[in-house]
Amino acid sequence: MAAEEAAVRAQAETVRRLKQDKADPDEIAKEVSKLLEMKAQLGADEGKHKFVLKTPKGTRDFGPREMAIRERAFKAIISCFKRHGAEVIDTPVFELKETLTGKYGEDSKLIYDLKDQGGELLSLRYDLTVPFARYLAMNKITNIKRYHIAKVYRRDNPAMTRGRYREFYQCVNDRRILDGMFAVCGVPDSKFRTICSSVDKLDKMPWEEVRSEMVGEKGLSPEAADRIGEYVQLHGGLDLIERLLQDPKLSQNKLAKEGLGDMKLLFEYLTLFGITGKISFDLSLARGLDYYTGVIFEAVLLQQENEHVEEPVSVGSVAGGGRYDGLVGMFDPKGRKVPCVGVSIGIERIFSILEQRLEASEEKVRTTETQVLVASAQKKLLEERLKLISELWDAGIKAEMLYKKNPKLLNQLQYCEDTGIPLVAIVGEQELKDGVVKLRIVATREEVNVRRESLVEEIRIRTSQC
Amino acid sequence: MAAEEAAVRAQAETVRRLKQDKADPDEIAKEVSKLLEMKAQLGADEGKHKFVLKTPKGTRDFGPREMAIRERAFKAIISCFKRHGAEVIDTPVFELKETLTGKYGEDSKLIYDLKDQGGELLSLRYDLTVPFARYLAMNKITNIKRYHIAKVYRRDNPAMTRGRYREFYQCVNDRRILDGMFAVCGVPDSKFRTICSSVDKLDKMPWEEVRSEMVGEKGLSPEAADRIGEYVQLHGGLDLIERLLQDPKLSQNKLAKEGLGDMKLLFEYLTLFGITGKISFDLSLARGLDYYTGVIFEAVLLQQENEHVEEPVSVGSVAGGGRYDGLVGMFDPKGRKVPCVGVSIGIERIFSILEQRLEASEEKVRTTETQVLVASAQKKLLEERLKLISELWDAGIKAEMLYKKNPKLLNQLQYCEDTGIPLVAIVGEQELKDGVVKLRIVATREEVNVRRESLVEEIRIRTSQC
Repeated sequence: MAAEEAAVRAQAETVRRLKQDKADPDEIAKEVSKLLEMKAQLGADEGKHKFVLKTPKGTRDFGPREMAIRERAFKAIISCFKRHGAEVIDTPVFELKETLTGKYGEDSKLIYDLKDQGGELLSLRYDLTVPFARYLAMNKITNIKRYHIAKVYRRDNPAMTRGRYREFYQCVNDRRILDGMFAVCGVPDSKFRTICSSVDKLDKMPWEEVRSEMVGEKGLSPEAADRIGEYVQLHGGLDLIERLLQDPKLSQNKLAKEGLGDMKLLFEYLTLFGITGKISFDLSLARGLDYYTGVIFEAVLLQQENEHVEEPVSVGSVAGGGRYDGLVGMFDPKGRKVPCVGVSIGIERIFSILEQRLEASEEKVRTTETQVLVASAQKKLLEERLKLISELWDAGIKAEMLYKKNPKLLNQLQYCEDTGIPLVAIVGEQELKDGVVKLRIVATREEVNVRRESLVEEIRIRTSQC
Repeated sequence: MAAEEAAVRAQAETVRRLKQDKADPDEIAKEVSKLLEMKAQLGADEGKHKFVLKTPKGTRDFGPREMAIRERAFKAIISCFKRHGAEVIDTPVFELKETLTGKYGEDSKLIYDLKDQGGELLSLRYDLTVPFARYLAMNKITNIKRYHIAKVYRRDNPAMTRGRYREFYQCVNDRRILDGMFAVCGVPDSKFRTICSSVDKLDKMPWEEVRSEMVGEKGLSPEAADRIGEYVQLHGGLDLIERLLQDPKLSQNKLAKEGLGDMKLLFEYLTLFGITGKISFDLSLARGLDYYTGVIFEAVLLQQENEHVEEPVSVGSVAGGGRYDGLVGMFDPKGRKVPCVGVSIGIERIFSILEQRLEASEEKVRTTETQVLVASAQKKLLEERLKLISELWDAGIKAEMLYKKNPKLLNQLQYCEDTGIPLVAIVGEQELKDGVVKLRIVATREEVNVRRESLVEEIRIRTSQC
């Protein structure tokens, strides 16, 4: 570095002297250019030790391989939304801070705020639900089935569960059943939401710990906690719903009764769809967020079966949602309610599962869709390659070529092996004379001469078979 | 509102009295539920007048129609990238603040910073180029052809040009030609970047204003400014390049000579691709950002031809980019350079043009891909509709149904007219008895009975023709 600095100083001295001597302006300009270039290089060098090269905490890049996997997952998800007639919307990555205020209960501290640089106070969106409710209220929309694919931002430390998963499973419950249950268990009304937050931890903590949080930290009576403990271990299907509708206490609670009635209807529809086997009505499901008002649900992964474990253990939620009938009304000037129900899919977790599976399977993931590499058999054919690839591009064929002026044929074939390109279109002097292109099928090493005017059609046929 | 508050207070009093009287716990729980519900409603109402319902300044929502248009544009762009063998990457929406520091020159003041909430200092990305350079340096990648579709954030007030455009046009120049030109015109080396910024304004201001900024604000000598003025009005093709290579001053400048040499090669390739007619070598093109080191280019829209205007006027850039060989080195611990060249497409502007065109054409934009509506001809057929739609979904058919229990047939047909669904599968009592479904073609009003087991195939055939 010291040597480079000395060189810049020497060059600056040269420029000074030339100017002093009133030398030829072009000569001066030339040396100034050189000095500028050296300074720029030095400046770049100086900057280089000052920072750590990383993405912000909790974020990651997606390289081409990761993106190929992520797009597979998106494709499956989007095709499901489209199959059910959903429309897509998009909203800005940040919202007015006050739009998010008061919507997330205890989670509000995890919101990213933007710096006050003059103008409006802004926050990054924390979920897609509150912006959606804002969108509905703003545009006075009362009927829409929408999907929305976008990142959300939370200042927490996501613990990425890794491991092998046995299967997906859906849990459902209803906030009204929970609230009714709290009421009949003797939870004071002021403690409903905080006790609900404790119940929400049952997927990560054993009941004993949750109970001690309820009694110790949150001041619930041990009797009430024990009554809750009896309920939250219940899970089942229509049979459990029927039983609870007969429960002498719960059946007297208006909210619980409403919730159980709707849950029964839901299970009747699930029966028609033939999927009751995948769904469990689970009284311990609570969901963290404040805004749910009715049915709530989660899709969870169960751990790979293990002889040491008796019951399958949930290792994490990959999707979740519920009914939030009050949220849009919070944005409407006249408080008009718009009933809503939605699900959020945690693509990051699904992605990491897909990634593990692909690693295990050693499947080669292609990161491009290139159908053909335009290659040359001899030197001095750059212009011919450019002409041919231009023809292919114009015909809609996905084609690549190496950028070197005179690449070796072996390197060009190797590139196809590495990237999974199935075909090579080879131009050589003889082929040019004969008006043909040699088409090589990478997998079989078969080579055929194809008339130039038939090449596009031949490539289409051969790649539609792949 | 006052009445609602009074009602809540009365209900709270009821609860207090019941508790005081040690009434039946279930009775208390019931009244508490009621109180909670009333409070929640009141809270929602209270929040409603406090804020303005809007998206942050400079941002907008995209509803289903806008998204359908945007996705059309994306599809065209992505298919072009894929045709040329590009891979896709993604990076986080924010970067460490220091990653962005010192990369944008005078534009740095437009960066959105996040609030310091403890931990790292973060900024929203300002472009996709700097995060890409950070990604390359971090992963030691020296060869990649990538595309990246994402939003970037700038604290300016984008003036959205509206109007009719005649055609796209590409301008090219080279930073080395510009810098050589500045040198031979007698611009002091310390003023290169700021004079370059002035030249960049030539697409929005006449030369006279730019000249007075150079001389007045930036202290350039009038003679130097006038020499620049002569160069920047030049534009042309290979002929102009040849002429400048003969220019007694410019041809003596090392940087300019390099730039002109590469420009000549570029035009030779453009000739092979047959697109020189769409490209203008334009000495006034400067590009605002600091990091460009070689060729720079812009795709601009020219105004609709107008008899009152002699030369077509550029009304805005829809894409731009250039070579930035120094940027990755700024992130590399050893300053290793990775040559890069890239283009950024301004999708917002392209989108607003597409939107105008669609409005003018009155073309109906579909926002879903639904193939068939499952409808019922009589009442009490909700379960039959659910069964049929479930079969269709399982077979991969895109299907919808109305959510009402007993919708009128007319309303179901109207829904198809409104949303562009081409087919209706109607279940009725007679059809169920006969084991058929009545398939109605919305456009022609033709109706045919299709055996239930052939329905999926029939829908596939009929919608592949659409």
